[in-house]
Amino acid sequence: MIIKSRIPVSYLFNELKIPLLYVCLIASISGLLPFFFQSFLSDIPISIATTLGIAISILLSYMMNQSYERWWEARKIWGEIVNDSRTLVIQLKMYLNANTANIEALSYRQIAWNHCLGRHLRKTRSIEDLQKWFSEEEYKDIKEKGNIPLAILSLQSSTIAKLYHNNELDKFSQIQIEETIARLTASMGKCERIKNTIFPPIYRYGLHSSIYLFVIFLSLSVAFKLQHFALEFSILVIVSIVFFFLEKAAFRMQDPFENIPTDTPVTFIAEKIESDILEMLGKENNASPQTSSRQFYVL
Amino acid sequence: MIIKSRIPVSYLFNELKIPLLYVCLIASISGLLPFFFQSFLSDIPISIATTLGIAISILLSYMMNQSYERWWEARKIWGEIVNDSRTLVIQLKMYLNANTANIEALSYRQIAWNHCLGRHLRKTRSIEDLQKWFSEEEYKDIKEKGNIPLAILSLQSSTIAKLYHNNELDKFSQIQIEETIARLTASMGKCERIKNTIFPPIYRYGLHSSIYLFVIFLSLSVAFKLQHFALEFSILVIVSIVFFFLEKAAFRMQDPFENIPTDTPVTFIAEKIESDILEMLGKENNASPQTSSRQFYVL
Amino acid sequence: MIIKSRIPVSYLFNELKIPLLYVCLIASISGLLPFFFQSFLSDIPISIATTLGIAISILLSYMMNQSYERWWEARKIWGEIVNDSRTLVIQLKMYLNANTANIEALSYRQIAWNHCLGRHLRKTRSIEDLQKWFSEEEYKDIKEKGNIPLAILSLQSSTIAKLYHNNELDKFSQIQIEETIARLTASMGKCERIKNTIFPPIYRYGLHSSIYLFVIFLSLSVAFKLQHFALEFSILVIVSIVFFFLEKAAFRMQDPFENIPTDTPVTFIAEKIESDILEMLGKENNASPQTSSRQFYVL
Amino acid sequence: MIIKSRIPVSYLFNELKIPLLYVCLIASISGLLPFFFQSFLSDIPISIATTLGIAISILLSYMMNQSYERWWEARKIWGEIVNDSRTLVIQLKMYLNANTANIEALSYRQIAWNHCLGRHLRKTRSIEDLQKWFSEEEYKDIKEKGNIPLAILSLQSSTIAKLYHNNELDKFSQIQIEETIARLTASMGKCERIKNTIFPPIYRYGLHSSIYLFVIFLSLSVAFKLQHFALEFSILVIVSIVFFFLEKAAFRMQDPFENIPTDTPVTFIAEKIESDILEMLGKENNASPQTSSRQFYVL
Amino acid sequence: MIIKSRIPVSYLFNELKIPLLYVCLIASISGLLPFFFQSFLSDIPISIATTLGIAISILLSYMMNQSYERWWEARKIWGEIVNDSRTLVIQLKMYLNANTANIEALSYRQIAWNHCLGRHLRKTRSIEDLQKWFSEEEYKDIKEKGNIPLAILSLQSSTIAKLYHNNELDKFSQIQIEETIARLTASMGKCERIKNTIFPPIYRYGLHSSIYLFVIFLSLSVAFKLQHFALEFSILVIVSIVFFFLEKAAFRMQDPFENIPTDTPVTFIAEKIESDILEMLGKENNASPQTSSRQFYVL
Repeated sequence: MIIKSRIPVSYLFNELKIPLLYVCLIASISGLLPFFFQSFLSDIPISIATTLGIAISILLSYMMNQSYERWWEARKIWGEIVNDSRTLVIQLKMYLNANTANIEALSYRQIAWNHCLGRHLRKTRSIEDLQKWFSEEEYKDIKEKGNIPLAILSLQSSTIAKLYHNNELDKFSQIQIEETIARLTASMGKCERIKNTIFPPIYRYGLHSSIYLFVIFLSLSVAFKLQHFALEFSILVIVSIVFFFLEKAAFRMQDPFENIPTDTPVTFIAEKIESDILEMLGKENNASPQTSSRQFYVL
Repeated sequence: MIIKSRIPVSYLFNELKIPLLYVCLIASISGLLPFFFQSFLSDIPISIATTLGIAISILLSYMMNQSYERWWEARKIWGEIVNDSRTLVIQLKMYLNANTANIEALSYRQIAWNHCLGRHLRKTRSIEDLQKWFSEEEYKDIKEKGNIPLAILSLQSSTIAKLYHNNELDKFSQIQIEETIARLTASMGKCERIKNTIFPPIYRYGLHSSIYLFVIFLSLSVAFKLQHFALEFSILVIVSIVFFFLEKAAFRMQDPFENIPTDTPVTFIAEKIESDILEMLGKENNASPQTSSRQFYVL
Repeated sequence: MIIKSRIPVSYLFNELKIPLLYVCLIASISGLLPFFFQSFLSDIPISIATTLGIAISILLSYMMNQSYERWWEARKIWGEIVNDSRTLVIQLKMYLNANTANIEALSYRQIAWNHCLGRHLRKTRSIEDLQKWFSEEEYKDIKEKGNIPLAILSLQSSTIAKLYHNNELDKFSQIQIEETIARLTASMGKCERIKNTIFPPIYRYGLHSSIYLFVIFLSLSVAFKLQHFALEFSILVIVSIVFFFLEKAAFRMQDPFENIPTDTPVTFIAEKIESDILEMLGKENNASPQTSSRQFYVL
Repeated sequence: MIIKSRIPVSYLFNELKIPLLYVCLIASISGLLPFFFQSFLSDIPISIATTLGIAISILLSYMMNQSYERWWEARKIWGEIVNDSRTLVIQLKMYLNANTANIEALSYRQIAWNHCLGRHLRKTRSIEDLQKWFSEEEYKDIKEKGNIPLAILSLQSSTIAKLYHNNELDKFSQIQIEETIARLTASMGKCERIKNTIFPPIYRYGLHSSIYLFVIFLSLSVAFKLQHFALEFSILVIVSIVFFFLEKAAFRMQDPFENIPTDTPVTFIAEKIESDILEMLGKENNASPQTSSRQFYVL
Repeated sequence: MIIKSRIPVSYLFNELKIPLLYVCLIASISGLLPFFFQSFLSDIPISIATTLGIAISILLSYMMNQSYERWWEARKIWGEIVNDSRTLVIQLKMYLNANTANIEALSYRQIAWNHCLGRHLRKTRSIEDLQKWFSEEEYKDIKEKGNIPLAILSLQSSTIAKLYHNNELDKFSQIQIEETIARLTASMGKCERIKNTIFPPIYRYGLHSSIYLFVIFLSLSVAFKLQHFALEFSILVIVSIVFFFLEKAAFRMQDPFENIPTDTPVTFIAEKIESDILEMLGKENNASPQTSSRQFYVL
């Protein structure tokens, strides 16, 4: 979840401490080299560092772009889940006219499904607090399944089928609701795809190595040109930290369902849907959002 | 809202005054340094500034691209709202043949929905002037809701359901209209997604810091090479202002529903829909566009 | 409309004469400076011009990309209009089996709609020559409307509704045709969106200023290095003209419905649809394309 | 059609002989200049060539991207044609249960349509060898039309309409098949759009001129620095040929229906569909692919 | 299949041994040149290598992007196959209410289809282990076909048609299931498109040659500047290996169905679908995933 606020320096430091350590090491070694190998090393052209620096910017920009796309796609899918949840309730109210009990049962399960899907993606399986949205029997049945959100969708569709067979729903309304369930199934599959497909790590390794290579060549060129340890050290640390910072930021956004500060706010969205559905059903909405109390950093 | 006209210099100055101040400070300090630290600082290679300058251009270009995409996506969604509003009225006229009272009631609420959604996104909740589009009872009911546009859509669909149950609408026409309402629900959800998901601020922080870093390194290199305060000062301010200007422009376009000069012209579009719907209903269109009187800058 | 042929030099000159004038002015002033300010100006590093040159290339490439996207999107929408016009006639023939009079009336109005939409987008409202496609009464009615293409679509749908009520069309065929009309409504709205949303001018201003800045810094560096007026002048004009040329090209493609040589060939496409529809109706196609006689440049 | 194999050097030479000639000319002239204009030309900074080189890379990368997109879009459309052809046969078999004669007639015409569309796009109109897929009367009728693929689709839909009126097809199955025909109509329109819309030639002209400009500035800088004719000549030819090679490759891919080695393999795909449809109908598939014998280069 | 784990150095070495060999050769020759051709070669400006280096980064970034797009598109298609497989079973259970035998037969064939499609794409045709999902007769029939996955889909649709004719399925449910089968047909066609369309090899040849050109120019410039063989050799190998590494990575991801470590995990996904479908049918799921035992590298 990304929110507008200050990033604590401690968090940033924590994220970047390993590359920072290596950069300090490289800067120190390079800064001392001129006292020993004056003769030939000084001729390494700074153009190599420059070329690497530009190359890295290009690759970095590409990686930031792809990471953003993944993160934005995850957000879009949850946006569709919001829309289809609302549409489902609108359809239930439209097609199951006076059948309040069934409208509520189906809507409640939809609320539970949103919460379940978020936890399923974050690999936290506890669903005890969702028991209130199910009948006792249903809850017992669902709890046992391997893929809980899929089991809930399966339950929804069998309820719809039953309503049709009891003549409480005509064929065409059944089809409309079935199509909404199919879209929810698709959204769920899309989330699982993003969750289970890691961004090609070879790209990241290539970029990561390139940044170190850039730091090494830059440190050599700068060290021999300046012959001033403190200055060389500061330049190197400052310049390299910008690249490592952006690389880390890009890397963090690649996995939008990892329960880290930058992920998609699935709990927040599920609560928002809960509140919208309860309002549409004309119910008192007691569930005040709980996520606001959690600590999030802007990353 | 973006329109073709001159940008007042005062507006630009206002937007850029903070970075401008910092750049002047950096340029002054750097310009004075050569009088004190002649010896070693003069050897900082200008290649570092060059590399940073190119890196910034690449990141900036990426950010301008993403900002434009967000802004264009927001514009596209409102384009779809225009289309679906028109389609809704075409459908109502087609399927509710002689039932003028209902066609008008539903169309008027669609007009109100467009205005409401725009205000909902800009977080301005006053809907008093929209009272004329509702019956008294409806207005009282809707005013109380937390999510007003969703409540209007819910009202639309329950009216459609009622028409079906009164046999004024056949099943298949009902389904067609329901699908249009589902698309409007989706458009609304998409707007909320863009509104509530901020562009990863870490990207902006990375870019913003990089520009300052670039200014510092450029100022050092230029100051020691030129040894001419006024010239160094002018070069630095001019070059850096271009980068800050583009960065600001990109930043401003990331939030297309913030009630600022660059946002999506939701009021204008809602008025355009109002005028189109009234013409389609064969009504006198008295609502002359009011936004034209507002002041907008081109940003 | 973009066609394969030579660009007249006069056209190019006309497009570029203003930046060309400024560049000549800058080149002249810079070329004369070395005779007066030998001392310190010669130290302005050429790296500043290089960095700006690369930055401009990146921004330019981004702008060319976005302009192309807009232009290509406009072309795609008109491609969809071609498809939906053909589909409409196929549907009319399929579902209104022997009802030739109605098939023809609806098809003729579709032909007129294509022509109208093109003119509506180019803000040329004269529709006298389209009178032949309407009955007298319809033409009188439509002529008065503010949004003529929307009025034609509204007329189409009320004809379809009438055919349904006269039992000449079953419910399901009506729905299929209504969906095609909804797609045409959407295409129309998309064209209006592109027409009415200008490309953020701030981006262009930023790029335009950057090119001038690049020219100034390049001219200073080159003038002091070469100390040869004619050579400096030629280099500057040639290099800068390439950038201005590409910027102009990108700018021109941003507005695909402006009745300029580079726009979308709406008249040509409307005539193509007319000829296809007439062939599908088995009619003699007398309307020889008239656009071929117009003069277009390749830009 | 792009296949994995060696590119003959003669083909490459043929494609690049004109720019190669100009580059040799420029390299020769520049190589001789140092013997006459020693004095001032030698001071042209190589940074101008460098900046142009990078600018070209950026524009080239953009153009390669857009060309690839066009080519890939063309390939995707033909992929959809494959899918919809298969779907059509699946639908015919499903909805026209025992009516083998009609299933076959409609499927055969679909086979013919694929072949026709490929030729229509490549502007080769001979359809004599497709006569076997039609009845005699149909063939005579279609042969005369201006837009043959559209005429075949029109024929398909009127056959479907006839089957419905003869009660051999119910309304809903008719609608499903009509929607598949509408998708095929759309795919056809998309191909025509790509075929008839040339890539903005101004972009190519800008890039092409830039490469020559780069060659000229590079040759001047290198010639005066090296003062060695053979070396200068080789460097220039090698470096510039890479740019011209990539530019040519991008240019060739922009027009995917031009009957050149790099185009979309429409004949091959049409034969593949033919073989798939025949297998689905349980027919002997005698039509061995004929394209394999044709010579294609990898470009 | 891409998984999170270490890449063995041996694998990397194997992938890069050919370019590594050439680079060593070039570095050796260039390193020895200064001892023989002191005079003029030393003047080759390093800017040529720099420009080429940046040009390569841009092209490489473009190619990495396109490769990633292809690979991600392949992954998305298999994501849709997961969704449509689940939707199919949900639909079967909803519309074929108590008809367990048919639900199971159709679901089992869907399981088999997923496995078959994966093998079809990887060109491994053995389907013996899938026999259990078919009746004996069906298996014999399908085994003979040229396009097995298409034959299975054809079989599914004829079963659906039969159920409709036996009045075990109403028209509208039949249409819903047919649409799911049409989507599966489309997904299959999309996979075949990616499989059969190679990435334009000319782009790769252009990039590959450019990297060698860059290595040659860099080696010449560095060799003459440093005059230290070991240092020149190390710099060259390290810098060039990064480019070749990224190029190889991009190349490997272009073909996502080639049965190599980086491809789409079709077997894994097919097993996942099998397990989900069995759970939805309430069957014991004995098929423990077998792929986990295979060795995959992260590339």
